[in-house]
Amino acid sequence: MSKPTVAAMNETSTITDHHVPVSVLGLGPMGRALAGALLAAGHPTTVWNRTTGRADELISRGAVAADSVTEAVQASPLVIVCVLDYDAVQEILAPAADAFDGRTLINLTADSPERARDMADWAAARGIAYLDGSIMTPTDTIGGASASVLYSGPIEVFTRWQDTLGHLGGSSHLGTDPGRAAAHDVALLGFFWSAMSGFVHALALAKAEGITATALAPYAKGIAGILPNIIDALAEEADAGDHPGEDSTIASVATSMDHIIHVSRNRGIDASVLTAARDIAVRAIEQGHGSEGFGRIADVLKRPTTS
Amino acid sequence: MSKPTVAAMNETSTITDHHVPVSVLGLGPMGRALAGALLAAGHPTTVWNRTTGRADELISRGAVAADSVTEAVQASPLVIVCVLDYDAVQEILAPAADAFDGRTLINLTADSPERARDMADWAAARGIAYLDGSIMTPTDTIGGASASVLYSGPIEVFTRWQDTLGHLGGSSHLGTDPGRAAAHDVALLGFFWSAMSGFVHALALAKAEGITATALAPYAKGIAGILPNIIDALAEEADAGDHPGEDSTIASVATSMDHIIHVSRNRGIDASVLTAARDIAVRAIEQGHGSEGFGRIADVLKRPTTS
Repeated sequence: MSKPTVAAMNETSTITDHHVPVSVLGLGPMGRALAGALLAAGHPTTVWNRTTGRADELISRGAVAADSVTEAVQASPLVIVCVLDYDAVQEILAPAADAFDGRTLINLTADSPERARDMADWAAARGIAYLDGSIMTPTDTIGGASASVLYSGPIEVFTRWQDTLGHLGGSSHLGTDPGRAAAHDVALLGFFWSAMSGFVHALALAKAEGITATALAPYAKGIAGILPNIIDALAEEADAGDHPGEDSTIASVATSMDHIIHVSRNRGIDASVLTAARDIAVRAIEQGHGSEGFGRIADVLKRPTTS
Repeated sequence: MSKPTVAAMNETSTITDHHVPVSVLGLGPMGRALAGALLAAGHPTTVWNRTTGRADELISRGAVAADSVTEAVQASPLVIVCVLDYDAVQEILAPAADAFDGRTLINLTADSPERARDMADWAAARGIAYLDGSIMTPTDTIGGASASVLYSGPIEVFTRWQDTLGHLGGSSHLGTDPGRAAAHDVALLGFFWSAMSGFVHALALAKAEGITATALAPYAKGIAGILPNIIDALAEEADAGDHPGEDSTIASVATSMDHIIHVSRNRGIDASVLTAARDIAVRAIEQGHGSEGFGRIADVLKRPTTS
């Protein structure tokens, strides 16, 4: 892979996608992965981070470190920001807003749909083309086919930068509502961390039974492998508003959860995550949903709006 | 597929695997799936259920309904029981224990490792060859390659019946400790139901944002798709006892969970499962594990033994 340099940038007269300069603000693990993927794809890449020292490896691969946010923004027509949260985004960009002047800002920082909409308003008020994005896969996927990045905002902005964004991984445009990507992000991260909490609980139970983690792993991957079919089935039920408990009812799930909680506690293992899940199932049963399928829980989680 | 009958059983002089009679006790959804898979594979199949009416479809496919447990046990050299829990197993089998007389009992009922060991002791005291098994996949997988059934107990019993058990789906022998399959079952079911709780929470959040379940599903399947690599990585870390928080620390996970909880509550969505997970992460941080990877949580879940 050739390493682009500032000299190479200046020598390029015809700008093709691979030669569009891109600036990356924020060099946490994800920011570094994004900049690395852009470098690997041949993009002249300018990087900036609040604290220094994070850019060394990227500089050795051809990145240019900017001394200020304004300098970083001015270096490229496309600016990608990926930091801790939108408070940090605002703090970093506020002094550099004037430098955008026709440039595009793509915000890959994770935050709430509300904050994404506020940020889009902020950009619109300053004439900045803006997309809000959410990165759905770990840093080590970035730049490869298994990476998934979701975008929302004006379709013409997405279309304009689609080729460049494709170098970060698989990209999907979810709609013009700038909060759409963040809404997916929050929902899916909740799924992810619940699953991960369940997996570390499984590791704790296995250890108490003398089962090594690597011995359990193939079976845990088997469980992960049955999720896609179940996701499709429950999603169809949810959109239809009908959750027949044909093979598994909320009542039987509550019993199963009770059983796991009991076995866990006998071994001194915290079962509070499953206890919370069991309590929700019990609430669903009390509301008359015991013979329905587990997907009905989604409705039980939503408290009726009180006026 | 030919439908075996009692007459066909009697006419068979050479017993090949496909013609080994099998009895299935318990005709819940899973028991019916097991009996159906045995029928499909050509096994003369005798079925019994505490309440009548569950066997009709199986009888139409060639199964023979026994009037009593003793009759069902006497009909086949291999008896499979799959009921609610081990209390039900004991209640069903106690009056028929003498009928086993050289037969094999395979218990596919889900319960705790302790109960599995007790059940193995009960069988041993009566000279009954015994395997304890756990079915890891849904009823609709049974009989196909995607089904997974785990067995533990004497290897010679597993080897003797391996071909027949293979007709139920993929089968693995986990060791001679009869509690081993149940230990895997409890650990993996906890993982499964935590993941499912996270998915229905994602459905509730999506709905509040006007995202349909079927629109969310492909991305949820994307999340399920990244789990196997993470499972392998965390398992290796767990066995090594070292959880470097290179790309994601417990501290950053706690922040992410906080964020999802906040967004959920703003929409009136119960976030108690994630709140329990967040509280555990906070406890890990308080214990000095904030800069370690999420896999360290497995150790935090296990309370120190107090003497």
